[in-house]
Amino acid sequence: MADWLATLDRRAELRARAGLTRRLHPRGAADEVVDLAGNDYLGLSTHPEVTAAAGAALRAYGLGATGSRLVRGSTDAHHALEDDLADWLRAERALLFSSGYLANLGAVRALVQPRTLLVSDAHNHASLIDGCRISGAETVVVPHGDVAAVQAVLAAAPGRPAVVVTESVFSVDGDLAPLDRLHAVTRRFGAVLLVDDAHALGVTGPQGAGGVVAAGLAGEPDVVVTATLSKALGGAGGVVAGPAPFVRHLVETGRTFIFDTALPPAVAAGVRAAVGLARAADDLRAELADRATLAVRRLRAAGLTVSVPDAAVVSVTAPGPEAATTWAARCREQGVAVGCFRPPSTPDPRSRLRLTLNAGVPRADFTRALDVIVACAPVGATAEPGSRVAQVVS
Amino acid sequence: MADWLATLDRRAELRARAGLTRRLHPRGAADEVVDLAGNDYLGLSTHPEVTAAAGAALRAYGLGATGSRLVRGSTDAHHALEDDLADWLRAERALLFSSGYLANLGAVRALVQPRTLLVSDAHNHASLIDGCRISGAETVVVPHGDVAAVQAVLAAAPGRPAVVVTESVFSVDGDLAPLDRLHAVTRRFGAVLLVDDAHALGVTGPQGAGGVVAAGLAGEPDVVVTATLSKALGGAGGVVAGPAPFVRHLVETGRTFIFDTALPPAVAAGVRAAVGLARAADDLRAELADRATLAVRRLRAAGLTVSVPDAAVVSVTAPGPEAATTWAARCREQGVAVGCFRPPSTPDPRSRLRLTLNAGVPRADFTRALDVIVACAPVGATAEPGSRVAQVVS
Ligand SMILES: Cc1ncc(COP(=O)(O)O)c(C=O)c1O
Ligand SMILES: Cc1ncc(COP(=O)(O)O)c(C=O)c1O
Repeated sequence: MADWLATLDRRAELRARAGLTRRLHPRGAADEVVDLAGNDYLGLSTHPEVTAAAGAALRAYGLGATGSRLVRGSTDAHHALEDDLADWLRAERALLFSSGYLANLGAVRALVQPRTLLVSDAHNHASLIDGCRISGAETVVVPHGDVAAVQAVLAAAPGRPAVVVTESVFSVDGDLAPLDRLHAVTRRFGAVLLVDDAHALGVTGPQGAGGVVAAGLAGEPDVVVTATLSKALGGAGGVVAGPAPFVRHLVETGRTFIFDTALPPAVAAGVRAAVGLARAADDLRAELADRATLAVRRLRAAGLTVSVPDAAVVSVTAPGPEAATTWAARCREQGVAVGCFRPPSTPDPRSRLRLTLNAGVPRADFTRALDVIVACAPVGATAEPGSRVAQVVS
Repeated sequence: MADWLATLDRRAELRARAGLTRRLHPRGAADEVVDLAGNDYLGLSTHPEVTAAAGAALRAYGLGATGSRLVRGSTDAHHALEDDLADWLRAERALLFSSGYLANLGAVRALVQPRTLLVSDAHNHASLIDGCRISGAETVVVPHGDVAAVQAVLAAAPGRPAVVVTESVFSVDGDLAPLDRLHAVTRRFGAVLLVDDAHALGVTGPQGAGGVVAAGLAGEPDVVVTATLSKALGGAGGVVAGPAPFVRHLVETGRTFIFDTALPPAVAAGVRAAVGLARAADDLRAELADRATLAVRRLRAAGLTVSVPDAAVVSVTAPGPEAATTWAARCREQGVAVGCFRPPSTPDPRSRLRLTLNAGVPRADFTRALDVIVACAPVGATAEPGSRVAQVVS
């Protein structure tokens, strides 16, 4: 075997010994498991209006966009979705990307000018971290949710352009960033606030418009929002929403917009139907909040260590990476899919199960799934049984 | 207006003065223009078998993948396409990404170990350049197609792991890299050759398997291939194909695989149908080769400066960025869509029209489009009319 491949095999062996192997598990179309692993928060990926809209556009436009929008033309399906997203997010303009990942890479980079300082939350998603990295700008990582640290960094760099980069609802622990206080600091120092609303869009805020609208920051000239269309909207793609001059700048200079094939028009059309449904889905959002409360109560009653969910992501501490893997595997055997997060996918050395709630899962299946998670919990997960029952989610 | 937005507006103004504004042009579903701008080389994006396969999977799975495959489960649609792509590309294994862009970012980065040297062709695509950049590895850019320069760089870094990064058919000028010679040098120095086959897949090689198979390099332990599913396959997504230990490494450590929502299953299913059609499409490949010859002959006869196309990309020199924009706009008014490439999207200061051939365009429309391009040519494009007629494409 070639040297470099032997090296990769040795590294795989080391990961295996540390309990950090990642494996793909097959999933059929007739997926029988109870989904507490995906991000289809409102169950819209299989909504008949969503798939019908996508199907109609598939027949009208064909499968792919066949090029970047600047080169091949910008379809009505893309424009209609951008208009609806801008309206929903109360932003001047919105621009589609083929993924949330590329939206983040594009947004961070486009915000960087010579001498820009990036201030990035320690729990930020890989795509934001990569955006900072690819921008080439000096980046200071601040402790998670630490507004004082952000302020200190900005105060120490007077006169420099700066961008504060954060998620709204964080993907691993499901907690909400202190957006209003972050914005106050950002504004004071003339910086820009970039918020990735991926896990909040559709789930929190008026009409599900997300964390930025909920915090009253929508439409501010120093706020840029990114989001993915692959979670509560059940589709694929990403969006950047913000002031019109910034979106124009992205269209004209954003490498991940210019040099990338556009989102398939059928996906754009399906997501647009999902936006309409999501805006009207206050009932599903109430159901999600209710399930979050229920999950925390049930799991804490069993002695598990559970995060305080601000949206529909619930994190449960595992005693270690191997225990997390076994726990998730045992749940899967019992027909329950949960996320299994281990270093280096976690912002700290703690391994976790991540439960993402899905309003499309029948309620009875959901409560049974909680029982399964408790029953499959490994030794060490329930440190002090019952001790945290009182701390029910706020 | 906020300071940073005013700055962006000033930069937009400077671009406008230099003739470098980029604008989105609307495109309806009933697109009446003759397409010489997109990358739907075989016309498969609208093939009824492709859209039917996508439509069936849309009904079976819903719109989105609802999560990364590691977390949410890896659908049969993804596995089936990966198996077919690996078979077609004669690689041990293939792994899907949500775009060709993210496939390139993931592949370059996963090839980098401590001390790795990247050797990158000067004409490489933005996604490869960004891959080099995000990897953090030292990168030497070598003159376009210059095997001796690659050799000199490798020779000057004995004992260092190295990766030579190239496209097969280059996206701007449509020329083919000297893959066999590049591989010989790479092999001699124990380096790895990474080839982006985006514009060759479906268009060149036996069964349209692309440049790497055509060069006899498929399955070699020191060759990794990337490609996009958004061009000749008419869909969306990207693929990395290569030795099994490398693909395993990507699954377990590739950030743009792990932290990204999977390609929609419906897109995977549609692309899989396209793979079957593309493999059998020798007739369409012959038609593309014929049209490339015809285009070069016709445009050179009119005195235009035209590249020597090795696949289905034909590049025509424009006198400057503004002239290129006007030329493309006049073509569009006459119902012909062509690509318009200006700095900084070009590897050199030369502006070009880029014609991408599409076997799905009726032949009569294609020949009329050539007439339109000639008729709309700006002053200065036809330097010495007729002078290059003899140099017909090989
Ligand atoms: C916070 C966050 N941002 C961005 C992304 C990337 O979005 P996408 O999957 O559409 O690339 C994700 C997850 O995938 C995410 O959790
Ligand atoms: C050479 C090359 N590589 C990669 C890409 C990116 O592929 P995708 O559009 O699927 O992201 C493109 C074009 O888009 C390309 O031309």
